[in-house]
Amino acid sequence: MQRITITPSQIHGNHIALTAEQHHYLTRVIRLQHGAQFQAIDGTGKLYLAEIIAEISQQISTRTAQIIQTITTLNRELSQPITLICALPKGNNFDDLVRACTELGVTTIFPAISDRTLLNPSPQKLQRWRKIAQEAAEQSERLVVPTIEEAQALKAIFDQLPTPTYKYLCEARGEHPHLLTSLQSTRLTDMSIIIAIGPEGGWTDAEIEMAIEHGFQLVSLGTRILRTITAPIVALSIITAAIENSEL
Amino acid sequence: MQRITITPSQIHGNHIALTAEQHHYLTRVIRLQHGAQFQAIDGTGKLYLAEIIAEISQQISTRTAQIIQTITTLNRELSQPITLICALPKGNNFDDLVRACTELGVTTIFPAISDRTLLNPSPQKLQRWRKIAQEAAEQSERLVVPTIEEAQALKAIFDQLPTPTYKYLCEARGEHPHLLTSLQSTRLTDMSIIIAIGPEGGWTDAEIEMAIEHGFQLVSLGTRILRTITAPIVALSIITAAIENSEL
Repeated sequence: MQRITITPSQIHGNHIALTAEQHHYLTRVIRLQHGAQFQAIDGTGKLYLAEIIAEISQQISTRTAQIIQTITTLNRELSQPITLICALPKGNNFDDLVRACTELGVTTIFPAISDRTLLNPSPQKLQRWRKIAQEAAEQSERLVVPTIEEAQALKAIFDQLPTPTYKYLCEARGEHPHLLTSLQSTRLTDMSIIIAIGPEGGWTDAEIEMAIEHGFQLVSLGTRILRTITAPIVALSIITAAIENSEL
Repeated sequence: MQRITITPSQIHGNHIALTAEQHHYLTRVIRLQHGAQFQAIDGTGKLYLAEIIAEISQQISTRTAQIIQTITTLNRELSQPITLICALPKGNNFDDLVRACTELGVTTIFPAISDRTLLNPSPQKLQRWRKIAQEAAEQSERLVVPTIEEAQALKAIFDQLPTPTYKYLCEARGEHPHLLTSLQSTRLTDMSIIIAIGPEGGWTDAEIEMAIEHGFQLVSLGTRILRTITAPIVALSIITAAIENSEL
């Protein structure tokens, strides 16, 4: 069944006020008729089964859909939020990264401007990443659309992180404990997890110092050399597996 | 330092017989001079530090490099081989998959023609994937270049798998134990691990039956819906993390 993403403010009682774009898509592009059903997620965890109301109805706004059912049974979300801080890679790879990390269950992504990445992405890029996160959430049947924050300097990101959290900084060169080992020696129940992945060439010593001051544990993703584009997917794979195993 | 991939048959005592292409690359493209050093991996686990010999030397073949040192200390390889059986995805995504899985330490990849993928890739595709595996092994400083087998029907692949092995088939829809749980309840020491990832739409019931007959355990990669392109990366991330943790 077709699925669209709405905002919670579009819900009015048992109706959804569709935007012009959504209404056009549902009735003109995929040509749903009066009474045809579709799904809507509000990005905060609620999934609605809704029905198209034909435009001939004069009683209510012509861009309104009727909510048939609010579904919350099929919850693919993890029990705790995961925040990814990721140094912006060279090139346009961040698109793929946002898509894969959304599939994997990330809650928030902070694109980080680190000492070794001078790239400051355009506002268009941010809009694009948010669109990709929304599409990927729809495709992977998630109920939560990850928040993509504006690209910021690492220090600014560190200063706004929620507490208490488990904070991990991946660092390839050192002799650090493996992320899985660190996670499995922790009681993974109630706190959110923050994972930071460096740029090509790794974090600078100053960045590592700053992370330690902000309560980050240094961890390794294994002995292999991973590209900046692969490392976040590996880290999130390990985190989600560790969380789902701790729930057993 | 520049790194090239050679075959073991190019080693003659303490010399490397370079191919015309390798010699051209080293002396013309990147312009290494007499005495300049480079690294060569033979794809089976050996790394050589070698030195260019100027063409004016008449004593030995003009396309020969001198081996200075055979290095085996920096071993990024896992303690046991990992074989990935992966149903061919739609589109050209298999390139990215070969690249990421090589980084992650895979030893052998079997592109599988499953009931739900009718694609039979051209010989050019296979050559391309082998080239990507070689490049990715060089970039990620691996000593082993993964073997990319020819695309085959699932049954043909199952019939040629080595034994004894741990065999896992990922299946999204069922209520199967998590891959990490299965791995961590196993003594991960001496046997190779085989992981099979299905196509868009999943394995057919007949394929699942056949896998069970061939000794595969059904496992899950978590409750989220993953694309065919993401699932193998997630599975390999979990396997490598589990192996490296069992070695502690």
